[in-house]
Amino acid sequence: MGKVYLIGAGPGDPELLTVKAALILTSADIVLHDALVTQEILELASPKARIIDVGKRCGQKLLSQDEINAYLIHASSVAGIVVRLKSGDPLIFGRAGEEIEALQNAGVEFEIVPGITSALAAAAAARVSLTDRRFASQVLFTTAHRKGGEMALDWTSAITPNTTVVVYMPGAAYAGLGDALIQGGLDPQMPCVVVSCAARKSQQMRWTDIAGLRTLSGINAPALLIVGRVARSDAETITTDLWKQLRTTAAQDEQYIA
Amino acid sequence: MGKVYLIGAGPGDPELLTVKAALILTSADIVLHDALVTQEILELASPKARIIDVGKRCGQKLLSQDEINAYLIHASSVAGIVVRLKSGDPLIFGRAGEEIEALQNAGVEFEIVPGITSALAAAAAARVSLTDRRFASQVLFTTAHRKGGEMALDWTSAITPNTTVVVYMPGAAYAGLGDALIQGGLDPQMPCVVVSCAARKSQQMRWTDIAGLRTLSGINAPALLIVGRVARSDAETITTDLWKQLRTTAAQDEQYIA
Repeated sequence: MGKVYLIGAGPGDPELLTVKAALILTSADIVLHDALVTQEILELASPKARIIDVGKRCGQKLLSQDEINAYLIHASSVAGIVVRLKSGDPLIFGRAGEEIEALQNAGVEFEIVPGITSALAAAAAARVSLTDRRFASQVLFTTAHRKGGEMALDWTSAITPNTTVVVYMPGAAYAGLGDALIQGGLDPQMPCVVVSCAARKSQQMRWTDIAGLRTLSGINAPALLIVGRVARSDAETITTDLWKQLRTTAAQDEQYIA
Repeated sequence: MGKVYLIGAGPGDPELLTVKAALILTSADIVLHDALVTQEILELASPKARIIDVGKRCGQKLLSQDEINAYLIHASSVAGIVVRLKSGDPLIFGRAGEEIEALQNAGVEFEIVPGITSALAAAAAARVSLTDRRFASQVLFTTAHRKGGEMALDWTSAITPNTTVVVYMPGAAYAGLGDALIQGGLDPQMPCVVVSCAARKSQQMRWTDIAGLRTLSGINAPALLIVGRVARSDAETITTDLWKQLRTTAAQDEQYIA
């Protein structure tokens, strides 16, 4: 019996793989990967490895989750080192839950190797401390989903102004997403930044506020949206006065919460 | 002028450094590190590097944040490669905000290299998909703080049952933390797992529920608490019936939110 490694491939730059992920990849017999895993990362795999793209989007045959689960179990019976490679971190919006359950139920030996999730890569590119203690006390990683044709977010009420919100897979409809954030209780003037293709050559950043999401277009996927006071940390746009003002507001909110 | 790298050292295992972090570390002239960065990681640094512990806890002289900022700026004027090494990821509870601001204001060239934040290492160790789509739609990284002698969390109202909550630096007072979670609107029966020293040899895990936090003790720091339906993903404790029940509850909540 072989062993299955559920591995986070990080945001796309091979240097942002963990050392462990890179080492396992070079000795893999079979690699199953999602569409977002870059070619440069796949090139690290052993030349003898069988590379299988299970995330093909335009092709006729897209493997279902059940088929992927079944293939992983099968692969572990015919190969020594089976790598299931997922973009970012496997445990953050990586649909690893079903694979973990299937491997456990089948008694297959497996190990999870974490990866740099896109929020961290995007924050590093934008130089934004997601939990900068002067402006934020926590960070929420979420996604938007469609509800009756409109974008919706999964919080029932107040996100505190001290919460940084990171929206994964924001899609192309930024206007609808902005509306959903405002309906979710956020201030239209709350700063935000969209980071597209973080840590890749094609990386792009757009600094705006929630109201400004209305006019945003031409952003390449994969992208990610960081919302919150911390998203003002762009050196070019910060004046000392603004920092002072933000600090005062943060202090007031703390009193409010306390 | 040299360049400063704010680098995430990950949870402690040198193999969980990114390839990029490991490469920069081996060529560093000066390394400033926090207390939680492990000896094995520091041993990767170039033998010529000056290693400075700025996180000494028991020593007489603890560098203030302002002193660290000033030292980083000074170091960049006398050395080529200056590494500021922080446990986990620098932008998640890493107090990088002030250092970023100081470097920007001083016009020092710098780059942020992300790291595996402890939530991801803990989740990988516990084999818990933090956003398992069957039970969760989002994940909140937060900390508890003291308010009038009691633990408090920074949310004003309902965290949805579809939100996984990760509490960083939970401290040793798990009973108080459990009370704070219940006051924050969470069900006392909500499953949770405490992961101590994730990805280190001394790693420990305790599976319980929020009510069970009352009786928890003897957990070594650094630890981290994962709360939410996803924290039931322990193979040994799951029966098919339980999964079915959890799935039904999740579906009901989705209707409620919609």
